[in-house]
Amino acid sequence: MKLRHGSDAVNLVVVGSIGLDTIKTPAVTRRDILGGSVSYACAAASFFTSTGMVGVVGRDFPARYRAAFRTFHIDQQGLQSADGKTFRWSGVYERNLNNRRTLSTDLNVFADFAPDLPPVYRESPFLFLANIAPELQFRVLSQMRALRFVAADTMDLWIKTARPALLKVIRQVDMLLINDSEARELTGEEHLVQAARRVLALGPRYVIIKKGEHGSLLFSKHGLVLVPAYPVDEVHDPTGAGDAFAGGLMGVLARARRITPGTVRRAMVYGAMVASFTVEAFSLEKLQTIRRADIEARVRQFLRMIRC
Amino acid sequence: MKLRHGSDAVNLVVVGSIGLDTIKTPAVTRRDILGGSVSYACAAASFFTSTGMVGVVGRDFPARYRAAFRTFHIDQQGLQSADGKTFRWSGVYERNLNNRRTLSTDLNVFADFAPDLPPVYRESPFLFLANIAPELQFRVLSQMRALRFVAADTMDLWIKTARPALLKVIRQVDMLLINDSEARELTGEEHLVQAARRVLALGPRYVIIKKGEHGSLLFSKHGLVLVPAYPVDEVHDPTGAGDAFAGGLMGVLARARRITPGTVRRAMVYGAMVASFTVEAFSLEKLQTIRRADIEARVRQFLRMIRC
Repeated sequence: MKLRHGSDAVNLVVVGSIGLDTIKTPAVTRRDILGGSVSYACAAASFFTSTGMVGVVGRDFPARYRAAFRTFHIDQQGLQSADGKTFRWSGVYERNLNNRRTLSTDLNVFADFAPDLPPVYRESPFLFLANIAPELQFRVLSQMRALRFVAADTMDLWIKTARPALLKVIRQVDMLLINDSEARELTGEEHLVQAARRVLALGPRYVIIKKGEHGSLLFSKHGLVLVPAYPVDEVHDPTGAGDAFAGGLMGVLARARRITPGTVRRAMVYGAMVASFTVEAFSLEKLQTIRRADIEARVRQFLRMIRC
Repeated sequence: MKLRHGSDAVNLVVVGSIGLDTIKTPAVTRRDILGGSVSYACAAASFFTSTGMVGVVGRDFPARYRAAFRTFHIDQQGLQSADGKTFRWSGVYERNLNNRRTLSTDLNVFADFAPDLPPVYRESPFLFLANIAPELQFRVLSQMRALRFVAADTMDLWIKTARPALLKVIRQVDMLLINDSEARELTGEEHLVQAARRVLALGPRYVIIKKGEHGSLLFSKHGLVLVPAYPVDEVHDPTGAGDAFAGGLMGVLARARRITPGTVRRAMVYGAMVASFTVEAFSLEKLQTIRRADIEARVRQFLRMIRC
């Protein structure tokens, strides 16, 4: 398989947030580092396919972060720059990094963002609607002209505040990625397996339940698939793991001839491996140091761990 | 493979607690139901090998619970009856059944228990030291004459209150089963993979980290093995899942010609499946309704879920 980096076509379009994150872990605090769902997802996908990002930053967005996107060969035609400040998020992780508390969220330029896709993006066959307001996800979705497969992610905030718009998006996607507590919240069903089945009934062919460090589950009419997480030696920052998982997964799917439960399963393993690298450092810092071959090596190691 | 039920030899001896549990879940409260680590572990093991229990009950122990053990063909020669009341535990589960709070623990006859094994038990090649005071575990261990393989389980209480005795047990077993938070507590190491490696350094050849509904990990010098949990449709009572996992695992190991990382991996899958049945009802109620063939069918289903 040859990477299409450098060609003009964009095989996968990703829309989501781009932000400057301030993250406090028990070990360290990092300020205004590159974050946001589209940053992690595009970086992860870029190992596998030509990827374009849709989002907005403010005038204060550091040039070195644009340069970081370039090192991943991410197409930035869909990245708007607007008057105002870049989206900011800050959060703190507790002792074992499992629990996160949001300290502040400043939408800034995202408050008035109305994505308008570059023509080349509209022809892309793959679309990932990373975590962002469902109205924006829908706006991007409606501009696509040649979609083969679209996946969406979401979060508890939209379930609480934008349920009708979210349900409208969910009805139109092939795959929904959602974490376990959000699946319970969306459906009002405590039993995870039953919650997942109810999400499936909302429209998507595939529902992936993300359980963070405990892996993920795929539900479809073809049955259930379990993918454990790779046991990372030292987690430094879990931020963006779910976005990297989804981005890696979509990057691999975007190279598949046909999308079957088997392809999705394999893509989930790749996504999980990219996510496992992501959490070994802050921001995109670890992903910047690895190559496709490192991911392949970890996939092989992982397959040995789960072989029965 | 033929089951050895009915023969005089006991292939696996299990020591642990036997108690009357009062359990409150969001849906229901059940009083004085059959519980305790040895009850769950022996019932689970009994599907695979001839199993004998070591423990103590009071005069108030209901005859119907003795009869329940007989339906599993569990050998009860090692089950003492003492003047006094049976061990009692009560606990409450929160909404999604993940968090448990102990309401009360009454040791009763366990306070003065000093196990003295029947001669036939001393010749057993397999021993499982289920969760109980490490002094009692050690007392049983020292009476065994022909051990091929011994595993131990423990809990946070003993890490806090009986660390030296626990470490003495850990040094002498082939396998330690311990849950994730306990591994962190035992070693003072927050990173789970590193905590597991430190436990391995304490002596056992195999360390299994139990993560409840998130599955288990096996650590040995041969590397790491991941076994996800079976996604149960409706969990009714998680009590005893870890004990049933360990009991099922030891039951399968006790039938193996040689114990290798591959055998242990396979035994973990069986243990996980027995545990998944256990949580579908209270006490041993689900296990009483299934047969070995039901476990085998679920193993096959599970292997399809994790096949990559």
